[in-house]
Amino acid sequence: MDIANELLAGSRLALSRAITAVENEYDTAVDIMQKLYPHTGRAHVIGITGPPGAGKSTLTDKLAKEYRRQGKTVGIVAVDPTSPFSGGAILGDRIRMNELTLDEGVFIRSMGTRGSLGGLSRKTAETVKIMDASGKDVIFIETVGVGQSEVDIVKAADTTLVVLVPGLGDDIQAIKAGVLEIGDVFAINKADRDGVDRLNIELEMMLDLNQDMVDWRPPIKRTVASQNQGIEELIAALDDHLGHLDKTGKLAIRRTERTKNELLAMIEEQLGRYVLRNISNSGQFEQLVTAVQQRQRDPYSVVTDLLKGILK
Amino acid sequence: MDIANELLAGSRLALSRAITAVENEYDTAVDIMQKLYPHTGRAHVIGITGPPGAGKSTLTDKLAKEYRRQGKTVGIVAVDPTSPFSGGAILGDRIRMNELTLDEGVFIRSMGTRGSLGGLSRKTAETVKIMDASGKDVIFIETVGVGQSEVDIVKAADTTLVVLVPGLGDDIQAIKAGVLEIGDVFAINKADRDGVDRLNIELEMMLDLNQDMVDWRPPIKRTVASQNQGIEELIAALDDHLGHLDKTGKLAIRRTERTKNELLAMIEEQLGRYVLRNISNSGQFEQLVTAVQQRQRDPYSVVTDLLKGILK
Repeated sequence: MDIANELLAGSRLALSRAITAVENEYDTAVDIMQKLYPHTGRAHVIGITGPPGAGKSTLTDKLAKEYRRQGKTVGIVAVDPTSPFSGGAILGDRIRMNELTLDEGVFIRSMGTRGSLGGLSRKTAETVKIMDASGKDVIFIETVGVGQSEVDIVKAADTTLVVLVPGLGDDIQAIKAGVLEIGDVFAINKADRDGVDRLNIELEMMLDLNQDMVDWRPPIKRTVASQNQGIEELIAALDDHLGHLDKTGKLAIRRTERTKNELLAMIEEQLGRYVLRNISNSGQFEQLVTAVQQRQRDPYSVVTDLLKGILK
Repeated sequence: MDIANELLAGSRLALSRAITAVENEYDTAVDIMQKLYPHTGRAHVIGITGPPGAGKSTLTDKLAKEYRRQGKTVGIVAVDPTSPFSGGAILGDRIRMNELTLDEGVFIRSMGTRGSLGGLSRKTAETVKIMDASGKDVIFIETVGVGQSEVDIVKAADTTLVVLVPGLGDDIQAIKAGVLEIGDVFAINKADRDGVDRLNIELEMMLDLNQDMVDWRPPIKRTVASQNQGIEELIAALDDHLGHLDKTGKLAIRRTERTKNELLAMIEEQLGRYVLRNISNSGQFEQLVTAVQQRQRDPYSVVTDLLKGILK
């Protein structure tokens, strides 16, 4: 049985197994990814981020339904980097036990953090590639919160949708500043709440201050996802952004940049494993840790010595 | 002028300059850190994390004041990994423009993300070491939110205080699950709000489920930081935890583990730089990116080839 070929022939089971292989780092994963890689690069990948409580899952579900209504197939990767120890991924699965999962044209997978964060970014990017190879037209990467981890994860997207919500208080200001630069499209969800106009004005002001937006001004759309309001308009904005990237040649530039970053991240991850295997499990390393711990040596000279041992 | 010696002699200016050197990666940083390292290991390092809006900064300030009343000197490192692009660190500074900054026995520094997250964890840990070498008795590492980034940063602490707040809604449940395992002491802040009893019960139940707590059951303390309520009791709990670590020999074990992780992180960071310098700036790398981008080669075999070129 060849998982990659079965996936390319349309098997949902093979799709699921390929993702599991990547997630659990099975030996088969690299082989699968090598075979699927030539079939990637066709989907519109949309990253969705924003503070907890903004209603991102509901919004993603409604966007997925509307894309389906337009005849497009959809993949959703729900990523939860905030749960390093316990079942964040399970939470995502439970929420998604709804009508979407009965639709053959939709494939949903949630991922939590097992192991390193770098690993999670890579696994998310590879899950997107697997769904892409399986022929999904639109793939959402949805994160639970907004932070450096989410920013890294969302880098796998062509278009980044930042979801905000009125009335989350002052700490949100800092978050807004942080995500301003990564947002290609903004949604103010729960737009039937108080404070929507103020948030809208604040956002516009922050966008005014940004210098980089010479040829694409991120639109701000209002939605009430729970009542299916504003979804079509939001999709139009997402499609517009893809069209803009395509027309200006920025899509190719973004994807080349992404390829570059993915290669570097893979190299760093492999190097990290090499270090774990060749340094941290050695008796010499334990001795050095003790020497540093007892202040007989300092960590900086120890690191220099250890690196001399492994690099050409 | 020798920054390290001046710092050890008690200069606040040297303390500030040493941190700046680490933060901006000046050439002098390693030399300073090597000289300070033998003088570290004396402070009680307390990590403070929890969701945005829990009132962590106010609580930290009140804890600092109470420690000062008890005659201890205090360092505060306020870390904001959620602001990769703009002035999260500035926000922290602004909030702290209060009476604490007039106290010679308190030193406050806020740090945002410039560069990699791994870099931020290391710089936070080194800032803690610098404050430690300067003789601070208690050092707080305060994060703005709670996520994998914050968990990594808080790893530099002896005692982790998780601050929660009643009534933040369902997304918080996932966060609580994620931070349960790292909390040595819990504070329910804004405990004059509705929902405090329910949150307390939920927390106790979650702690009941945890298997690892055979000899230390994390206490749950209620505070209203803005009104200075519960601060002394919380400090007693933090001190109890340090006493427990010391008595059981766990303090040495934790710190050895931390030394080990810090060494590995430093090695990985140095390797990352080596890769950037020797691979990503080469013309060969650009050609490989193009080949991968055009699906002539797959990223997995390219990475294998590149690694062969640099490792012994």
